[in-house]
Amino acid sequence: MSLLDETCARIAIPDPGMAERTQLLLDAKTKPRRSLGRLEDLACRFAAIRGEERPPLPVKAIVVMAADHGVAAAGVSAYPQEVTAQMVLNFVRGGAAINVLARQAGARVVVADLGVATPPPADAGVRALRIRGGTDDFTRGPAMTRDEAVRALEAGIGLAVELASEGVTLLGVGEMGIGNTTAASALTACLTDASPHDVVGPGTGVDAAGLARKREAVQRALEVNRPDASDPLGVLACLGGFEIAGLAGAILGAASRRVAVLVDGFISGAAALVACRLEPRVAGYLIAAHRSSEPGHERVLAAMDMRPLLGLELRLGEGTGAALAMSVVDAGVRILHEMATFADAGVADSGR
Amino acid sequence: MSLLDETCARIAIPDPGMAERTQLLLDAKTKPRRSLGRLEDLACRFAAIRGEERPPLPVKAIVVMAADHGVAAAGVSAYPQEVTAQMVLNFVRGGAAINVLARQAGARVVVADLGVATPPPADAGVRALRIRGGTDDFTRGPAMTRDEAVRALEAGIGLAVELASEGVTLLGVGEMGIGNTTAASALTACLTDASPHDVVGPGTGVDAAGLARKREAVQRALEVNRPDASDPLGVLACLGGFEIAGLAGAILGAASRRVAVLVDGFISGAAALVACRLEPRVAGYLIAAHRSSEPGHERVLAAMDMRPLLGLELRLGEGTGAALAMSVVDAGVRILHEMATFADAGVADSGR
Repeated sequence: MSLLDETCARIAIPDPGMAERTQLLLDAKTKPRRSLGRLEDLACRFAAIRGEERPPLPVKAIVVMAADHGVAAAGVSAYPQEVTAQMVLNFVRGGAAINVLARQAGARVVVADLGVATPPPADAGVRALRIRGGTDDFTRGPAMTRDEAVRALEAGIGLAVELASEGVTLLGVGEMGIGNTTAASALTACLTDASPHDVVGPGTGVDAAGLARKREAVQRALEVNRPDASDPLGVLACLGGFEIAGLAGAILGAASRRVAVLVDGFISGAAALVACRLEPRVAGYLIAAHRSSEPGHERVLAAMDMRPLLGLELRLGEGTGAALAMSVVDAGVRILHEMATFADAGVADSGR
Repeated sequence: MSLLDETCARIAIPDPGMAERTQLLLDAKTKPRRSLGRLEDLACRFAAIRGEERPPLPVKAIVVMAADHGVAAAGVSAYPQEVTAQMVLNFVRGGAAINVLARQAGARVVVADLGVATPPPADAGVRALRIRGGTDDFTRGPAMTRDEAVRALEAGIGLAVELASEGVTLLGVGEMGIGNTTAASALTACLTDASPHDVVGPGTGVDAAGLARKREAVQRALEVNRPDASDPLGVLACLGGFEIAGLAGAILGAASRRVAVLVDGFISGAAALVACRLEPRVAGYLIAAHRSSEPGHERVLAAMDMRPLLGLELRLGEGTGAALAMSVVDAGVRILHEMATFADAGVADSGR
């Protein structure tokens, strides 16, 4: 049995009975029942995932996976491909937005190279999980082989399992890769049966001509590859990116070890959608961090029936929305530990 | 000149030129322009309020004002009036939701008694700003006199000015008072010209009969008092609560000292609306923390043209939404300080 199959088989649906026990603990706290809204839902979700009615506060990490995309040659981004490698170095030096927001959240950042065109120096502090230096241009054929897709998925699984073994219980997933909103758009169009027009957005900020090229690229990718939406591995190989495949693997690996996953924005969301199609039970481990400005994100969220925690008009990726949402998850769990009960505090309970 | 008039006169519109300078700093950071969405807006807002293009991280406090309401006798709450005093003690002992969330946010909590029926012990750590032990039932006449309204406003001003002098630069405002969603509903109906049906909600969780009593109470309050919406002080005296008046004062006091204000939910929002009607320039200092589940909140937000940062279905009050939103404001300001520029990091800039 492959690591991928074994990982999927190991994913269990989080226990709804545990969530109910946690809700009873919350109902005894000095507040009207359910008046902390989604914070209470998060506490219950996290408890069910962890299998403890009052789990410890999350131990947090953010995985940022980077790779390059053959389709970048089609002029689909406002930035040149070199920026992927430049930003990877910015991540490990601590100067990017994700570093700032992860520091605030108390989360460690793990940067992984799944296939950046220019590999970072070996001593730079980047996890080398390279498949090769970027995908092929999917407007001319598959982005990668099925075997490469499995290898990228398994690299992600390995990293998530390692982090789980080090005690991480809440994993944020983010990415960097010039051209990757085009790949996420193609995956979304295929997996949600949407038109390129509806899923393609400005990404890092292309102009009208660039937007037209992105739509054209997605349309061509679908025509040239004719991916079968019922074969998620095939879809991933045709239309994905190495970092997207790696993230889908990290999500599956996290769920297989009862680690909750904060899914960042559109590209991470497309990776989560691939993971859900590979193994639907993974859905119980996913928390949508924020609603991105990218139009395709709405489709991705709807396909997984997910409602994001935040709506701050972010469109940066890197895991920035996941880092911001970590404090909301923390807050839900912290309530469980630190709030007084009606009995403790001598406060009259209406029972409502 | 009264303290109230002097405070209103001192409120200056935050400098839009400073916000533009801060946006230029943000545009040099390693991310597509404006891709951090509302975080960038917050950084610019905070800079304009503070009058510095790169202001230090916010120094945070949350003021929780408590008082009782004569209208509670009309059976408008799921909880007995004693709960106001009981919760005040819970706040100073650190066991309430606001304490947990303020600890997480790194904000100090200041609890003030503006008129709780049973005063807390003198040594309990509650700021004594009492007007008297609760308002009159406003279904039979004014909740308080105009003079009492001014005294409560000025008590709030005094507290905010004191906190500003101690270095606070971001003030969250929250409240506790059994019956106070009914007062907030009456204020909202009057100040936004809405029907009681549209602004009254379940509050702490009343049943259908309780909801009908709340609507009836608001309707009666409007009929009996006939408040004039163009006289905000008169509206506050007829329909307000001492904690609501105190919060309106705290908001004015904060703005007069260039302190940004995170407005919590429906009741704090009604207080902010009163403050805006007393002095429209205060609007530039207000940040709506979250969208409450209470239906009247939407009206309050629309009347001030405010778009909340969070939508987590909270309906607790106490300042809980303000505490959660503090980390979002922090994140915006932190980006200004800690992110690398394109030049620092050697990353190619698209200029977009």
